Amino acid sequence: MQHTPALAALIEALRALPGVGPKSAQRMAFHLLQQARPAAQNISLTLQRALEKVGSCRQCRMFSEGELCVVCANPQRDDGLLCVVESPADVVAIEQTGSYRGRYFVLMGHLSPLDGIGPEELGAQQLDGRLAAGGVREVILATNSTVEGEATAHFLSQLVQAHGIRASRIAHGVPMGGELEYVDGGTLARALSGRLFL
Amino acid sequence: MQHTPALAALIEALRALPGVGPKSAQRMAFHLLQQARPAAQNISLTLQRALEKVGSCRQCRMFSEGELCVVCANPQRDDGLLCVVESPADVVAIEQTGSYRGRYFVLMGHLSPLDGIGPEELGAQQLDGRLAAGGVREVILATNSTVEGEATAHFLSQLVQAHGIRASRIAHGVPMGGELEYVDGGTLARALSGRLFL
Repeated sequence: MQHTPALAALIEALRALPGVGPKSAQRMAFHLLQQARPAAQNISLTLQRALEKVGSCRQCRMFSEGELCVVCANPQRDDGLLCVVESPADVVAIEQTGSYRGRYFVLMGHLSPLDGIGPEELGAQQLDGRLAAGGVREVILATNSTVEGEATAHFLSQLVQAHGIRASRIAHGVPMGGELEYVDGGTLARALSGRLFL
Repeated sequence: MQHTPALAALIEALRALPGVGPKSAQRMAFHLLQQARPAAQNISLTLQRALEKVGSCRQCRMFSEGELCVVCANPQRDDGLLCVVESPADVVAIEQTGSYRGRYFVLMGHLSPLDGIGPEELGAQQLDGRLAAGGVREVILATNSTVEGEATAHFLSQLVQAHGIRASRIAHGVPMGGELEYVDGGTLARALSGRLFL
């Protein structure tokens, strides 16, 4: 059955959401038009407003509605520690642990030559300028533990060390509360090779 | 970490989508603002347009951008057969089988007294008028096989029969290609009690 034009356009548009295929998109569109019209209106408006208002922090590239994001604008954070992450969601996750008091730098992606994403797209030049300005004593590379994330961390470690600044990588190993039996081989190998002497 | 106001409003709004919790909503909002701004613009616009254009078919209550939906406007469908379903998605599913040539009536829900949904909200009066106008020889009750769907079908069967029209219920049993071993007990019991003699 053919959908009406406006409905078909909406279903097609909703497929841009992460993890949403044709079936889910239809389900969402039908739900919005059938039972949740005020909520649908709200999504359209808040999305429009977010597109207009939410930009990037001038200093760390995190989502921000002003020149500086909350972390960069906070004078109480440690300027000497800089944590480099791939995405804003990573900043949120680290902030939720409550165990980090330094600054951030958000790459907004990882090195991916096939997709045309090189150092320039990740703001490497901006990061370089920040390190050259001095005051940073350690850069924590907290990119994902994927092939691309590791490659990005490797590239950035050289950039950091060229400034005579210490580069560190977040630890990888068995998750807290994890049972060895159920941990995948790669993680277990990493936990063994990265063992700490007591 | 506190989200910026526009971002927080967007995440909250996205939670109205079916099956989307706080984590998915954040993931969607970040994805849209980080990598898919044109797609986000498109969602906002198509949603707005769908809200303005998509209404209900005057005759069957299906989604429609005109007075009549595609099925009701088609002179080649069988006026004598009327299939009653709970939602527009059911119409789409039945149309996709290509095995039904009659008309539809969409309840846009099921009887649910606790939510204040009675016969009036389901368009029972409209259905009554359509049956009274004559020309319908059978009403197929294709509501879901849930407690509410069964109750709705039972209620409607009485309404239909009051007009001296035959009411039928779609068959329930083992799905095609289904192995008995993996079919739930309720379905299997229904398949046994509804067995057909050869």
